[in-house]
Formats: sequence, C-alpha cells, structure tokens
Amino acid sequence: MRCDRLWSDARLATMTGVGTAGGLGIVDRGMVAAVDGRIAYAGPVADAPAFEADETIACDGRWITPGLIDCHTHLVHGGDRAHEFELRLAGASYEEIARTGGGIVSTMRTTRAASEDDLVASALPRLDALIAEGATTVEVKSGYGLEREAELKMLRAARRLGKERPVRIATTFLGAHALPPEYADDQDGYVAAVCDDMLPAVATEGLADAVDAFCEGIGFTPTQTARVFEAAAAQHLPVKLHAEQLSNLHGAALAAQHKALSADHLEYLDEVGVNAMAKAGTVATLLPGAYYFVRETKLPPIDLLRAAGVPIALATDCNPGTSPLTSLLLVLNMGATLFRLTVEECLLGVTRNAARALGLQHDVGTLEAGKSCDLAIWDIERPAELVYRMGLNPLHARIWRGM
Amino acid sequence: MRCDRLWSDARLATMTGVGTAGGLGIVDRGMVAAVDGRIAYAGPVADAPAFEADETIACDGRWITPGLIDCHTHLVHGGDRAHEFELRLAGASYEEIARTGGGIVSTMRTTRAASEDDLVASALPRLDALIAEGATTVEVKSGYGLEREAELKMLRAARRLGKERPVRIATTFLGAHALPPEYADDQDGYVAAVCDDMLPAVATEGLADAVDAFCEGIGFTPTQTARVFEAAAAQHLPVKLHAEQLSNLHGAALAAQHKALSADHLEYLDEVGVNAMAKAGTVATLLPGAYYFVRETKLPPIDLLRAAGVPIALATDCNPGTSPLTSLLLVLNMGATLFRLTVEECLLGVTRNAARALGLQHDVGTLEAGKSCDLAIWDIERPAELVYRMGLNPLHARIWRGM
Ligand SMILES: [Zn+2]
Ligand SMILES: [Zn+2]
Repeated sequence: MRCDRLWSDARLATMTGVGTAGGLGIVDRGMVAAVDGRIAYAGPVADAPAFEADETIACDGRWITPGLIDCHTHLVHGGDRAHEFELRLAGASYEEIARTGGGIVSTMRTTRAASEDDLVASALPRLDALIAEGATTVEVKSGYGLEREAELKMLRAARRLGKERPVRIATTFLGAHALPPEYADDQDGYVAAVCDDMLPAVATEGLADAVDAFCEGIGFTPTQTARVFEAAAAQHLPVKLHAEQLSNLHGAALAAQHKALSADHLEYLDEVGVNAMAKAGTVATLLPGAYYFVRETKLPPIDLLRAAGVPIALATDCNPGTSPLTSLLLVLNMGATLFRLTVEECLLGVTRNAARALGLQHDVGTLEAGKSCDLAIWDIERPAELVYRMGLNPLHARIWRGM
Repeated sequence: MRCDRLWSDARLATMTGVGTAGGLGIVDRGMVAAVDGRIAYAGPVADAPAFEADETIACDGRWITPGLIDCHTHLVHGGDRAHEFELRLAGASYEEIARTGGGIVSTMRTTRAASEDDLVASALPRLDALIAEGATTVEVKSGYGLEREAELKMLRAARRLGKERPVRIATTFLGAHALPPEYADDQDGYVAAVCDDMLPAVATEGLADAVDAFCEGIGFTPTQTARVFEAAAAQHLPVKLHAEQLSNLHGAALAAQHKALSADHLEYLDEVGVNAMAKAGTVATLLPGAYYFVRETKLPPIDLLRAAGVPIALATDCNPGTSPLTSLLLVLNMGATLFRLTVEECLLGVTRNAARALGLQHDVGTLEAGKSCDLAIWDIERPAELVYRMGLNPLHARIWRGM
C-alpha cells in the first residue's frame, strides 16, 4: 500500500481510548501513515499493512499526539490592556480605570479603529505562539466590533489567519458579547441588531462556523440568548455559550436545550445544568487561564461533570482583558494544578474533546484513519510531561495535513 | 569616544530609579554603548558623549532592560517527577507515592546515578528555555546529591553550564537540603558531614559562590542551620536560606543575623523576621511558581516587606518536585497575579534585586556604566507587557557581555 509519508518508531497517544486512564489510547511501538493529507493508518507497527512510503521519518521513539486544538479564543482584537493591568496592580479602582477608558469598551474602540490588516498583523504573534506548541486547529471569535462592519472585519481577519499560517481556523460570531455604548439604553435593540442585521450578513459571507453569546448579569439575559440561538438556527449555524462564569443564570441548560456544541467557563454551573449538558452531548469547555488571571476561587463542578460523563475541553480563552494567554501547554498545567484534572482529562481536553466542542470530531482530535493528518511530535518520555512542566516547550515537529 | 557596539533609538528601563513607580528608571529616547563587554554609557541620547562605534544597532524604539536574572533554581538534577505528578492527580496518596519511590529521595537517586555529563545534558534544555526569554545570569544549587561526591558532581555540572552557553552561572552549595537515607537516624551527623567534609571540599575546588540550607520542620533546625552558616563563614562564603516556606521557625531572622544575601520562599514570615531582614539588607526572594504548584494559600507578607523596605526578588525555583518551571516571564505574571506585586516590583525582582540576592549588584542587574553589558531587547510598547502576558515571548535579542 502506497503512502506519502510514514512516521515510524514512534510512541502514540491516539486519544481514541475509553474510560479512566485508558483514554489516551497509548501505543508503545507505533506508526502513522499519511495519504493526501489524511491519516491512512495510525496504530501498532505489528498490526499495520505493508506500506511503500515516498518518505519515511524515523521518530526515534518520540511521542506523537494529535495536533493540539484551542477551542475558545478571542485571538483577533485591537490593542492590549497591559496598562489597565498595571494600573490595577498599582491600586487603581475599577471606576478610575473606566475613567481612563479601560475595560472591554477600550478593546472595542481599538478593534473598531484597526484595519483588517492591522488585526491580522497583531494576531499573528499570538497565533504563532500557539502553533509553536503544536496547535493545528484554533477557534477565533468576533465580539469586539459590536457593530456590523467591525464584526465582519474581525471574522474576515480570523479567516485570513488560516491563509497566513498552516493552521485550521474555526470562526465563531460573538456579536452578543457586550453592549456597545450606542445601545446603552436599549439592550433588546442591540440583540435585534445582532439577530436581524449582523448575523444574516455574517452567514451570507460564510464567515462563521458557529454562533456564541455571553449569558451573564453583565452580559445578556437567557431570553436574549435564546433569541440569538434561534437566529443562528435559522442560518443553520451551531451554537455555543459563555455560561455560568460569574453567576448561575442556567445558561448551560439553555445551551443544551439548543443542542449547543459547548458551554464554556462554567464555574457557577449546577447539577441541573450538568445533567442537561450530559443529555445533549454538550462539551464543557473549561478556561483555567481566566480563572487564574481574575483570581476566581469558585471551581467548576468537576466531580459532577465527571460523574455525568460530560466531555471536558480546555482552552486558552486568549483575550486582552481576563486571559492574555497564548500557551496550551500552560493551560494543561493549569487544568491539573488549579482544577485537579487528571493528565488524561487534560490531554483529551485539548484534542478529542476540543474537536467535539467545535463540531470537528469527524475531522480532527484523534489519531485515526480518515482524519486530517495533524500531528504533534514531542521530545518527551511520557505524556504526563506535557502537563507537568511550565514554560518548557518539548515540541519536536508539528505536522498539519500531512506536511 | 570609541565603543565596540552601540544600541541606538531605544527606550530603556535602566532599573536604577528609586521610589514607587520611578524604580524602573525609564528613558524614552535612550542608548547603550559597550566597551570590552561592559556598559560605557546607558541613558538619554541627549546626555550621551559623542561615540564612535565599531557597530551600531538601531533598535527602532524597542525597549532595553538589563538581562534577566534567575536567582533561585535547582536547574541541575537527574530525572523528573512527571509520573509522581500524574499519580497524585489520579488520587494516589503521599504514602503510595513514597512506596513507588517518589519524593525528593527519587530525585536524589537519579541524580546520584547520573554522570556529570548526564546532568549537564538534562539541564541544558531548561537553561535554554530561560536564555530564550532573556536570562543572562542564573543561579544553580546543589542539594540532590546529599553525599560529597554527588554534591561536587552537581556543582561541577552547574559550572559547566556556564561554559556550554553564554550565560553567567552563580553556584550555591545546598548540602543541607534534605536528609539522605544513610543518615535517617542521625541528622546531626549529616550536618557534621555537610560542614566538616562536604563544604571544605566544595570550597577547595572553588565550586560554590554561596551556601544555602533548608530550615524547616521537614528540613533542618535553626541550630543546625546556624552550624552550616558558621562553616560557610569559615570558608568566607556568603549564605542564603530556604526559610518560612511551610511554617515559621524564624529562619529569616537567623539568616539576617548571619548577613545572608537572601531568605527565600517566606510565606510564613512574621514582622520580626521582616524587620531583621530590613536591618541586615537581606533580600526577600519570593517563589510564586512553587506557591502555585503546591497550591499554597498563605501569601508572603508583601505589605510588611514593602513597609520595611526589604528588597524583593522573584525567581523560578526550578525544581522537579514543587516547581518544574523554566519561565521568568511566567514568574513575573505570577508575582503580579498571585502576590499582587506591582509591575515595577516584578521587574526589579528579576533584575536589580535578583542581582543583590546573589551578591552581584556591582556587576549586573541595572543598565549603568561599568556593569556587564547584559541586555534584553524587547518587542513591546511598554514594560508592563512583560508582566501581563502569559506564554508569549517578545524577546527580540539578548546580549551577554556586550555580544
Ligand atoms: Zn471567551
Ligand atoms: Zn529552592
């Protein structure tokens, strides 16, 4: 059997296993073969068909995992909030910072003022940091434009990232992220603009793979969120939700009711929400970087999620206000250290379950025949090292679509 | 005036200022000139003498800081403890882990079994990670040999790191780190071996720049620590101390009494200890990576240290058991996020005050004429970005001894 490339003498974590501790799908003497950018075989050498490979790469016993997936980012945005961070550490109050133009509105202003080229240029170093640690799929949300043209510009910039670099970009329209000043007294009016004006324009241009909202006391109500979900369904777009980050508005259950791909954050999620997610197959995307950065102390209900069998994903939540984080390896460590997830849960969280959180489980997230040949090859002795270390990048090579 | 190299069109954080918020010593239109590896001038362009430079490097407005200093590491050690980390997350008790050979004794065994070459080879990727983020001076401790030959081997390996890479290595003899099994029933006997056998051998070979100990309930008593300090004084070596990490044995005050360069960790430090440190000029080296990794909740007494004017340094504490961390940039973020240090305090903590914690304040740590020309040149718009971001390395270039 012919193949384009063959990675031999490797140890594999295929991420195809089931159950506690077996989930990593470990193969001690393994190989991967690629044809036309897809995996033709991934598994034990002993079970492999005979391949004639155009190119064979000896891995010298290195570990291969699926390319990593960051399934929740706000990677595209204007400016940063380093100065606001500095002021807050120096003792400035939220009011003082708001008076100096801080907060999400400041990111809205810099994002609106930026050109599409500016947004691409400023996002690339962040994307490159993710890629350097083995990421092959990255989700990017809009949500700092908060008006039609600026939202479209953000999503076009996100799509362009996937042309500038060898990486799969999944885009999410997050018009219902915050209330722009123009609608300060008319939240329902803004939601109507999101649903009736922005979302159809986004869908017409094919700029979004999913639709998201921020359901929270300082965001949008469950009723408004449901309106956004219905508008998404009318465009045949799947939904996800920022839910239960600061309080429990039962957003996750609402998301589950709308067959959401994922509900994200979830520190204040309760058992009813957990069970609704389990029933709907909605992924719980946990964001330990934001938990760490805002010094949250309420942990997401990990034990309940485990008991109900809700798939858990982990992501950077890369954003300028609450998680200026561009390292999935650090997310793995935070998932373990802060949330007490196991090594297996952490690694499934940035591969198989992250794929599912994007609706891409048929294409990426595991080492299985038929899937895109997206690989991360690591200079490690055991997968736990990827979770254990902080600030060391053991990536040996990254393969995207077989190259 | 002739110089070898000149960095023009730069913004400087000289770290020479005094007082709150002025400590960074910011120069908006600055330059640095080097002669024979030393800084000939660092300051405003407007005040500079006329230089004839063999080479001029235009910095295009980038920021220059002193090269970063990691003043507390256990960078040289055999093996890792990733498996122990994995077992603990999976629910194993400390007893179970001890039964599988875990804990500091496992690092002692792998370190004793390693050759000097092995120790150098395994430390280099960790050192390279620090260097990649602008570190130009790194302290390295012994303390996993816990017998004469293995301690000497660790310190020789540490010295060799400074030959393998362009970086200044400061070595510290930490024989009194833990009790080796051979002395399980004779702690004083081991301290006698440290003082009377190991330390003289270390000093004779010139292998240590300082002497350290672990003063703690699970380490050594204040009386034993004092013995080690006296033995160090007899060899004309300065001392430092792991103090008040898990309980308050008044180790910092003891260290101050012995004119220690630094007392390190300090979560359980009290006001008496703070005042003793202030009076002696002993640096408080805080280690937020260990605080984070072991999920400590007791914060070091930052307000007391500030009020007393104790210089605060920050370091990785890179070690396989409680801080597998090789990123000073992440230490900066942890100092701010977890300890609420200001941007200025964080940056002084890995430059000026870290130099002082090593007794190297006359040679490194600030941009001042006469000091070693160790520079970090950054692609940033303001120094706060170095503290704010997580997982992004904006280092443009690193200069060590003018090259
Ligand atoms: Zn988000
Ligand atoms: Zn230490």
